[in-house]
Amino acid sequence: MSAPLPSWNDGAARRALLDFVDAVTTDGASSFVRPEDRVAVFDNDGTLWSEQPMYVQAHFVVDRLRELAPAHPEWRKQQPFQALIEGDEEALRKLTEHDAAALIAATHAGMTTGEFSRTAKAWLATAKHPRFQRPFTHCIYQPMLELLDLLRTHGFDLHIVSGGGIDFLRAFSEETYGIPSSHVIGSSGKTHFDLRDGQPVLVKLPGLTSLDDGEGKPINIHLHIGKRPVLAFGNSDGDLQMLQYAGSGDGPRLRLLLHHDDAVREYAYDREAKTGRLDRALDVAGKDGWTVVSMRSDWNQVFPQG
Amino acid sequence: MSAPLPSWNDGAARRALLDFVDAVTTDGASSFVRPEDRVAVFDNDGTLWSEQPMYVQAHFVVDRLRELAPAHPEWRKQQPFQALIEGDEEALRKLTEHDAAALIAATHAGMTTGEFSRTAKAWLATAKHPRFQRPFTHCIYQPMLELLDLLRTHGFDLHIVSGGGIDFLRAFSEETYGIPSSHVIGSSGKTHFDLRDGQPVLVKLPGLTSLDDGEGKPINIHLHIGKRPVLAFGNSDGDLQMLQYAGSGDGPRLRLLLHHDDAVREYAYDREAKTGRLDRALDVAGKDGWTVVSMRSDWNQVFPQG
Repeated sequence: MSAPLPSWNDGAARRALLDFVDAVTTDGASSFVRPEDRVAVFDNDGTLWSEQPMYVQAHFVVDRLRELAPAHPEWRKQQPFQALIEGDEEALRKLTEHDAAALIAATHAGMTTGEFSRTAKAWLATAKHPRFQRPFTHCIYQPMLELLDLLRTHGFDLHIVSGGGIDFLRAFSEETYGIPSSHVIGSSGKTHFDLRDGQPVLVKLPGLTSLDDGEGKPINIHLHIGKRPVLAFGNSDGDLQMLQYAGSGDGPRLRLLLHHDDAVREYAYDREAKTGRLDRALDVAGKDGWTVVSMRSDWNQVFPQG
Repeated sequence: MSAPLPSWNDGAARRALLDFVDAVTTDGASSFVRPEDRVAVFDNDGTLWSEQPMYVQAHFVVDRLRELAPAHPEWRKQQPFQALIEGDEEALRKLTEHDAAALIAATHAGMTTGEFSRTAKAWLATAKHPRFQRPFTHCIYQPMLELLDLLRTHGFDLHIVSGGGIDFLRAFSEETYGIPSSHVIGSSGKTHFDLRDGQPVLVKLPGLTSLDDGEGKPINIHLHIGKRPVLAFGNSDGDLQMLQYAGSGDGPRLRLLLHHDDAVREYAYDREAKTGRLDRALDVAGKDGWTVVSMRSDWNQVFPQG
């Protein structure tokens, strides 16, 4: 059998992971955790795949908007639509959360969940990352795939806990990460039960029911899983409360932050970043002994081959 | 090997269940369903356990209220508290949804989710059903336990989808039904992430985030599971949309309603009932060919032995 985690360099992060897996799976050890309690949670944007230069779902929304624009001439004179359609980068950087909600409502609302899923899958099959020129689902991190596999092999129950839209995540989570829809937690919008041509469907409505970020993450972990995770992996301040929540409670716990410090192979950003800002969580990590994973030093490969 | 579903009399309902399990698990058949898509959902109150003379969680709330009453002298002159404390059955029958929310807020809010879980478990360990004089967790239906086992053995992914409170359900679902917390969907209240003595906790707040009843059931099935169930089992009008939703889509589908027609061994109620009313769903079942399970005729045993 080959050594586990081959894309991880031998160092503190890799050893922390292997030691943790050993500790919770060694039958009879005081650190043993029953398989049903081996809950592990992963942020997605910036933890499992690249979130720069902007969130993948933002690329999707922009492309959808441009596709829909011919049927909406009023958007040409209305912000934030005009800025996006024209690719006005300055205006794009100033988008507020309110703008984002208006954009998502304009591009997603009115579709059934089935239609949305098909649209997202079709987009993911063709859209490419602007810098890496490969599909976004190939801009996932090889070392994280290996970690998911290692944990799965050892009976862990893996969940994604992302600020991204839950329906968008589910369009690729099973195929890309092997994580089924029932194990995906994300931000969610209002839906309405309706009969269309006699068929019961759920129609997406404008308006958010849950923003799965910050304190929303532990709240949704409780809602969806009902247990405290023993392992949590994030990369930004939006993951702070999730890591705090996962870290408390009895027994062994492992909390990890991916530090994007590799401008050559991916991106380098932390305290000043607009997307995926890592500031307060980095301070807490230092103080509380969380494992900070350096992309530059801890990973010998970033993306999967090919 | 003994015959499956021993507490089910040989009849249309038992045969429908066995035929369905055969159909979806026979490799190579056109009706075959991959294990990851064998999602089966069950209502709880009146489907997995008895919901008469009132919902079990209502018994819990009443007992909690009486326990907390000495510290709240104001409740003695304030409805709905006064009615409950005094056991005024006439007033109890007139409780509105608003009253219920006030009661749940008064008895649950301010506790951490951990404290709530311990309180509910302690209550379930001692409280008894007023007629059957056994713990509520023994007023579950033996034929349904056998069905859960049969489906589990055949690779089905079982979920509870109940109007009851999600945290209350999780206090007994794993031990009682073998269904883990991550597979429990219920009504949920607001929570707040907080640090208490430096420990991250979730504190229950007044106010509902989701009423898991009626069209709330398919909406929450989509939120939590993200797939359409192939089997859905309910017993009241609150399950109508869940059964409609589960029944659409491609491939084999089985929708079942438990009809409480056994006043001798349990209760007989349907169209006129205040709790667990079965009226419109019974009409739809007849029209759309759903399987109506008669407690009196289809079950040779209702509760587990002992």
